[in-house]
Amino acid sequence: MAVNLLATPAADLYPVPGVRWGITEAGIRKAGRKDLSVLLLDEGACVGAVFTQNRFCAAPVQICREHLAKNGGKSLGIRAMLINTGNANAGTGADGLNRAQASCIALARELNIAPEQILPFSTGVIMEPLPHDRIAAGLPAAVADAQASHWGKAAEAIMTTDTVAKAFSRRVTLGGASVTITGISKGAGMIRPNMATMLGFLATDAFVAQGLMAQLATELAEGSFNRVTVDGDTSTNDSFVVMATNRAKHAEITSLDSPDGQALKAAMLAVARQLAQAIVRDGEGATKFITVQVEGGKTAAECRLVAYAIAHSPLVKTAFFASDPNLGRILAAVGYAGIADLDQTTIDLYLDEVLVAKNGGRHVDYVEADGQRVMKQSEITVRVSLGRGQATDTVWTCDLSYDYVKINADYRS
Amino acid sequence: MAVNLLATPAADLYPVPGVRWGITEAGIRKAGRKDLSVLLLDEGACVGAVFTQNRFCAAPVQICREHLAKNGGKSLGIRAMLINTGNANAGTGADGLNRAQASCIALARELNIAPEQILPFSTGVIMEPLPHDRIAAGLPAAVADAQASHWGKAAEAIMTTDTVAKAFSRRVTLGGASVTITGISKGAGMIRPNMATMLGFLATDAFVAQGLMAQLATELAEGSFNRVTVDGDTSTNDSFVVMATNRAKHAEITSLDSPDGQALKAAMLAVARQLAQAIVRDGEGATKFITVQVEGGKTAAECRLVAYAIAHSPLVKTAFFASDPNLGRILAAVGYAGIADLDQTTIDLYLDEVLVAKNGGRHVDYVEADGQRVMKQSEITVRVSLGRGQATDTVWTCDLSYDYVKINADYRS
Repeated sequence: MAVNLLATPAADLYPVPGVRWGITEAGIRKAGRKDLSVLLLDEGACVGAVFTQNRFCAAPVQICREHLAKNGGKSLGIRAMLINTGNANAGTGADGLNRAQASCIALARELNIAPEQILPFSTGVIMEPLPHDRIAAGLPAAVADAQASHWGKAAEAIMTTDTVAKAFSRRVTLGGASVTITGISKGAGMIRPNMATMLGFLATDAFVAQGLMAQLATELAEGSFNRVTVDGDTSTNDSFVVMATNRAKHAEITSLDSPDGQALKAAMLAVARQLAQAIVRDGEGATKFITVQVEGGKTAAECRLVAYAIAHSPLVKTAFFASDPNLGRILAAVGYAGIADLDQTTIDLYLDEVLVAKNGGRHVDYVEADGQRVMKQSEITVRVSLGRGQATDTVWTCDLSYDYVKINADYRS
Repeated sequence: MAVNLLATPAADLYPVPGVRWGITEAGIRKAGRKDLSVLLLDEGACVGAVFTQNRFCAAPVQICREHLAKNGGKSLGIRAMLINTGNANAGTGADGLNRAQASCIALARELNIAPEQILPFSTGVIMEPLPHDRIAAGLPAAVADAQASHWGKAAEAIMTTDTVAKAFSRRVTLGGASVTITGISKGAGMIRPNMATMLGFLATDAFVAQGLMAQLATELAEGSFNRVTVDGDTSTNDSFVVMATNRAKHAEITSLDSPDGQALKAAMLAVARQLAQAIVRDGEGATKFITVQVEGGKTAAECRLVAYAIAHSPLVKTAFFASDPNLGRILAAVGYAGIADLDQTTIDLYLDEVLVAKNGGRHVDYVEADGQRVMKQSEITVRVSLGRGQATDTVWTCDLSYDYVKINADYRS
């Protein structure tokens, strides 16, 4: 189903010293599904995170923000994360906050740490009460299962409508020391991250100053999760967490602009982008992976506006599904994207290398067979040149198929 | 297919003195389909219109704006409209403008008037050259067909993916005189009018000052076409034209705030709203008609933002299609609608009369059977109370079904 996406073989997922994952089945989701995961972080690690901008943000998101604020210094430090599927604990009011808090307290007892050292995450159906008793009952088994080699197992355990587990690794050399970066993500629908996406966890053993972690999380999200969309629905639970366990034997990175800082960020961004693009490749019902590249704008922000208008248009997305080069729909989306002074006579449209429209009208040399050929591919680049400046931006999305409707009409049943 | 929508019987469509419609088959669309219509307006009529805000607006929209600007006074006056289906003449550059202009010139010769007295309209596929020769060849037959009784026939001739012809009439008494209002519209997909919708024509024989027509068109569009959405795609060709033939025997209306002005506007708004709602009822693949009512906002604009976020969410729309009360998706849409300081703890959600969520969380008395019962209806009201002010706004939309994907994956073939 997923577009050019296979689960990464276990041998290619590198453990990150200082990080262990434990997984169990707690009976939150349907029988036979692992639905409860804990991430255990050794003392001395740094954590940064970004969360959804949805004002209906879930109870666990609210608690994560509180706990991170309390752990700004390293005095206490985040030591564990608790993730359940099958229930989003969003739209649950004060009761939802209590249940999320109760789950943190249960894990804190198990690990003999403070509840504030735990970050909770939930994903699943909105507006259902979280079964925190079942979570508490499942915790001993999850903790007992903890292993550094369980990244792949964790990627499977956090899936909901995902069809492929999303996990990627990379190594980079910093100051002569080998540094590992490994991350996992989940998500297939309700995907239009705003600051981050529904559950992404990225860890490295690099030695990074705690003060850089928030900036690092934001910059990585900006270049990866904040550039993908499936259906334009921003989730209530989006969370992206970046961890540095500080085990690698190089000098501490105190600026992301230093040579080591830049090298680490580039390597982490490569993994974050793989994780984000994997969500689009596994987008609900997706049959095509589409890169929407907008250039020649006055600002990157207006390029992004146009890119998202194209990426969210149901008419554009169904045309890609049908491999039908009904490309005027792309021009219509460019026109309503919200640039008030846009001049249609300076706009060019390319499908891969095929020039479809020139100066706002169909190019004289364009023949439909060329458009058709590109539309049939599983990977397509839409390139729009606005002709009004030098800025550029890129967004990744997928098509809209019968299966998107089927999956979302059936979800829960 | 359409949701509680049948074509109005011919006997219930009242001719408007001073307006005649002529229809023919010019071979622009597929064989056997009437695809060319002319509206002939007697001397002395007033016209106001609003058009799409899409920056990729079609060639005919650009020409309409020019011709209306030239006819601001009554010296010359608009005397005819020319409508073709099967081709939108959008994304066609300078060549498209020439072809639209050539069609106006051909009709002007046929009627012995100036080209500037004609408003052209096109609807269909974007980025294809307009077959203006076939239009010119079809004009004599269209003009010869002109009759005051052809409103129903015109409503059929302007359909594209519509399944039901949209035409409504109403009579109102002004200053002792009986006044007629009749209108037609078309549209089923690429529907999220911004200022007006794809082809709405509304005529009355009321006696209205020309100076009021632009204001009347804008106010009517605001309360009708600008409050509906099918798929969030704003068309390149949206046009809404309001005509007053000034034949009725009452004193001239010189203010919309006068008693007669208010009565006329209310009656015209009722018809405009029927025409706009008919587009949603006939929305591509629609199985349900949904009223999204947002109240308790600080401003009507923020209520509208929330209403459109709900009305555009593919997840909300597929849940309605499935009659699945997965109503947390509505809260998620409220949360990402864009109100930066929204407090989730003051928000209530109703489905018809059923209180689903109270203070941002599932209501203690809510049982899914109640939500399920309402979801199964063909007409549903979603009511969100924001609890932060007195403003309110309403938007009408439909669900998202397999057939939306099918229709838009197949369109053109």
